[in-house]
Amino acid sequence: MSKPKKENRPEARLPKGFQDLTGEDLRATHRMLGVIREVYERYGYEPLETPAFEYTDALGKFLPDQDRPNAGVFSLQDEDEQWLSLRYDLTAPLARYVAENYDRLPKPYRRYAMGPVWRNEKPGPGRFRQFMQCDADTVGTESVAADAEACMLMADVITALGLPADKFRIRINNRKLLDGLLAVSGIDPVADSDAARRLTVLRAMDKFDKFGSAGVALLLGAGRRDESGDFTQGAGLDTDAIRKIVDFLEAGSGTEAQARARVAPLVAGNAAAEEGLKEIEEIEALVRAAGYGAERITFDPSVVRGLDYYTGPVFEAELTFEVKNEDGQTVRFGSVGGGGRYDDLVARFTGQRVPATGFSLGLSRLQSALSIMSSRTSQTLGPVVVLVMDRGELPRYQRMAHALRNAGVRAELYLGTSGMKAQMRYADRRAAPCVVIQGSDEREKGEVQIKDLIEGAKAAAAIKNNAEWKATRPAQVSVPEADLVATVKDILARHGGEV
Amino acid sequence: MSKPKKENRPEARLPKGFQDLTGEDLRATHRMLGVIREVYERYGYEPLETPAFEYTDALGKFLPDQDRPNAGVFSLQDEDEQWLSLRYDLTAPLARYVAENYDRLPKPYRRYAMGPVWRNEKPGPGRFRQFMQCDADTVGTESVAADAEACMLMADVITALGLPADKFRIRINNRKLLDGLLAVSGIDPVADSDAARRLTVLRAMDKFDKFGSAGVALLLGAGRRDESGDFTQGAGLDTDAIRKIVDFLEAGSGTEAQARARVAPLVAGNAAAEEGLKEIEEIEALVRAAGYGAERITFDPSVVRGLDYYTGPVFEAELTFEVKNEDGQTVRFGSVGGGGRYDDLVARFTGQRVPATGFSLGLSRLQSALSIMSSRTSQTLGPVVVLVMDRGELPRYQRMAHALRNAGVRAELYLGTSGMKAQMRYADRRAAPCVVIQGSDEREKGEVQIKDLIEGAKAAAAIKNNAEWKATRPAQVSVPEADLVATVKDILARHGGEV
Repeated sequence: MSKPKKENRPEARLPKGFQDLTGEDLRATHRMLGVIREVYERYGYEPLETPAFEYTDALGKFLPDQDRPNAGVFSLQDEDEQWLSLRYDLTAPLARYVAENYDRLPKPYRRYAMGPVWRNEKPGPGRFRQFMQCDADTVGTESVAADAEACMLMADVITALGLPADKFRIRINNRKLLDGLLAVSGIDPVADSDAARRLTVLRAMDKFDKFGSAGVALLLGAGRRDESGDFTQGAGLDTDAIRKIVDFLEAGSGTEAQARARVAPLVAGNAAAEEGLKEIEEIEALVRAAGYGAERITFDPSVVRGLDYYTGPVFEAELTFEVKNEDGQTVRFGSVGGGGRYDDLVARFTGQRVPATGFSLGLSRLQSALSIMSSRTSQTLGPVVVLVMDRGELPRYQRMAHALRNAGVRAELYLGTSGMKAQMRYADRRAAPCVVIQGSDEREKGEVQIKDLIEGAKAAAAIKNNAEWKATRPAQVSVPEADLVATVKDILARHGGEV
Repeated sequence: MSKPKKENRPEARLPKGFQDLTGEDLRATHRMLGVIREVYERYGYEPLETPAFEYTDALGKFLPDQDRPNAGVFSLQDEDEQWLSLRYDLTAPLARYVAENYDRLPKPYRRYAMGPVWRNEKPGPGRFRQFMQCDADTVGTESVAADAEACMLMADVITALGLPADKFRIRINNRKLLDGLLAVSGIDPVADSDAARRLTVLRAMDKFDKFGSAGVALLLGAGRRDESGDFTQGAGLDTDAIRKIVDFLEAGSGTEAQARARVAPLVAGNAAAEEGLKEIEEIEALVRAAGYGAERITFDPSVVRGLDYYTGPVFEAELTFEVKNEDGQTVRFGSVGGGGRYDDLVARFTGQRVPATGFSLGLSRLQSALSIMSSRTSQTLGPVVVLVMDRGELPRYQRMAHALRNAGVRAELYLGTSGMKAQMRYADRRAAPCVVIQGSDEREKGEVQIKDLIEGAKAAAAIKNNAEWKATRPAQVSVPEADLVATVKDILARHGGEV
């Protein structure tokens, strides 16, 4: 291959809205995936990995952002002219899989899936066009025990990841209850003609955490102007309806028994709402019986969930500790995932109603939360670096690296051509806990020098002058070559790093 | 959501050429990825995960199938009109990443990557348009020690996956040596005008394993007609050139010292070839010093590797045990991965030559090999199933499932609405080692029944009639509820499954 001329060279650039993941962050991701997988497995969920692509018609359009029904998805045409799209979540591919393989699946069918999804959206800060989701769903049962299990499983996963019970809460609600509330507020909960207004109302309710009662009331009525002067058109409801919905949202402030008692009269006489409330009570009973208190799983009438396809219980996992947002304000960390019951998704294909419920966790939000929580003291140590003092002796240095690896120590041979000083800089860059050095003197004596870089850095900070340094050579030992592995292991153990 | 009419329903179908992965196969995949990751980490390689997409111009066209230079890739246009493509391997994104982040990387830079790649190709049996690759590369060193390390790392990964040393071999060659052979056979190894003929010759050489000397000689000359009557056009070389190339290929039949001795006179006087041979010798010396014998890593002049971008050592990992191919013939299992040195790939972006070497392992080929090797005796046991005998007691059954899980036992609650018989069928389908049963009688006594399904199946095969069955009720015990976990654990331990 001949060297391309400058004008023909492409620019090396990461595509807009995507990210390269590396090093410790990526290792943390994989550790988290391992933990999540283990909990899902313990609950008897079966792994499923569908491909990145689905046929566009099979995928359907269930993106949370209903304003852009035709956008949001990466699509292309196959050679046979059929349209393919990259999955934007893990639920739509599950519906396709279940419809396609219904007869040979155990019923109910529990499955988990973990993998990237793609959204063809305008990227923003911390908002990427490819991100990881970790889902667990149960297909083929109408029992609210499945919804209760979903909530407990979410709680168990978050706990297993290292977040204590007082740092998160699973909040539950029910779409039937919300539909009932809409109905008694004069909005048809199913008719297509009321779809836009319904969405405006649900979105307004979803802003309760952010704008409070007064803000939501504006969004339900004439509209709301924010600090920057932008105006959001309201749903145009009358005062009675607004009062009712705001009361409904505010009902969540006390205990969950109080919440149910305050909500019930607001929707009295509406059959759907009453069924929804009953299901909430059943879920509560099931999770309490299994030992999950209201501090972990609780009814909250302000939980809405954006997706149109939910048909029953909905749930949201929220981290309750406070962080600074982009504007420097102190806010709750917020949602790391959620889900609900969607009994009609498989029927899109088969015409046959197949009840289903489940949830999705967003890995990157969970990962940020964990990195905020942890003091990051348990940084993984870098590999031990074997320096190359004499290139003619490469096989000998390589044997040392091999001996370390065979003993389970992460170790590498320096493979560049630079001298001692650059090699030490390289080792620093690799966060090496120690380096192994053998010049001709040591080789003749059958010895190796091992330099503890962590101890050395501490000593360097304490020692005043170069002469003292040269005289004492702290954190550096010479040992017989046969003691290499044991000595390195001692140093690693001293620094308490993962090996 | 209203139920769609039949004519509007999409068909639930997996896109052509893709696959759904499930259950034990997928678990095995994840176990393998864990093992591979661990070995890569031990060698000091850093994880990197680039996104699925790259800009099409940055990705370049380095697919092995040179016949379809414009196809082979899934591409689409972004909103800003730039073309995006799904990565078809993990090497091209690495080149982009290194070019983009060169200054802040340690040099040499070792990285590993594991993930799906996509090929927009005609699917065939066992040939998918999305599959997993596991790569390890070292960027920024010309040292053949890096090539030697790549070979040893491949060998260590394959060993760690459970394939003994006599079942695989890493075969090495050198593109410089092959270029020299082409040159002395009258083909220009770099000129664009000879590109097509060069490719025909390299492909013919690549068929040595399959067609032997006679077949390759035809492909190098006038052409070859196969059993079905299909004719492949040959390279049209003269008899001397054909003789030389076939001698070269046959040189690999003895020891590697013999191979080098037989190859040397064929390319005598060609500087590139001599350099290539010297590098092969150096790699041999390095791997022998580290304890890898010729049965694991060896020179083989018939190794070609399809990609145009290799510039030095090339290597191929081959499994040497025999399997039946699609036509029922006994053949070697064949290649599970390979790689080589590609010193010009980063220069595409920067104009600056950045030496690099590495390899790619194909996960699904390795996985088939492992499943052929293993007798599949260590099948993971399914979850313990807690049956629901009385739906009013759901919280009680759920507590049992929870108690089992908290003790680390994979357990699930039956969530359907069917009766006892269907629940037992469900448990069978889930490969449950045992089920937990509590009817009202047991409940009153504070007991649970535990039915060992594995033992039960054995007993059922031995027992002749129903009356005897009912009288003895083999493999079924009643224990106090407090002993549930301990009793289940005993049963699992007896069946030796992973819990």
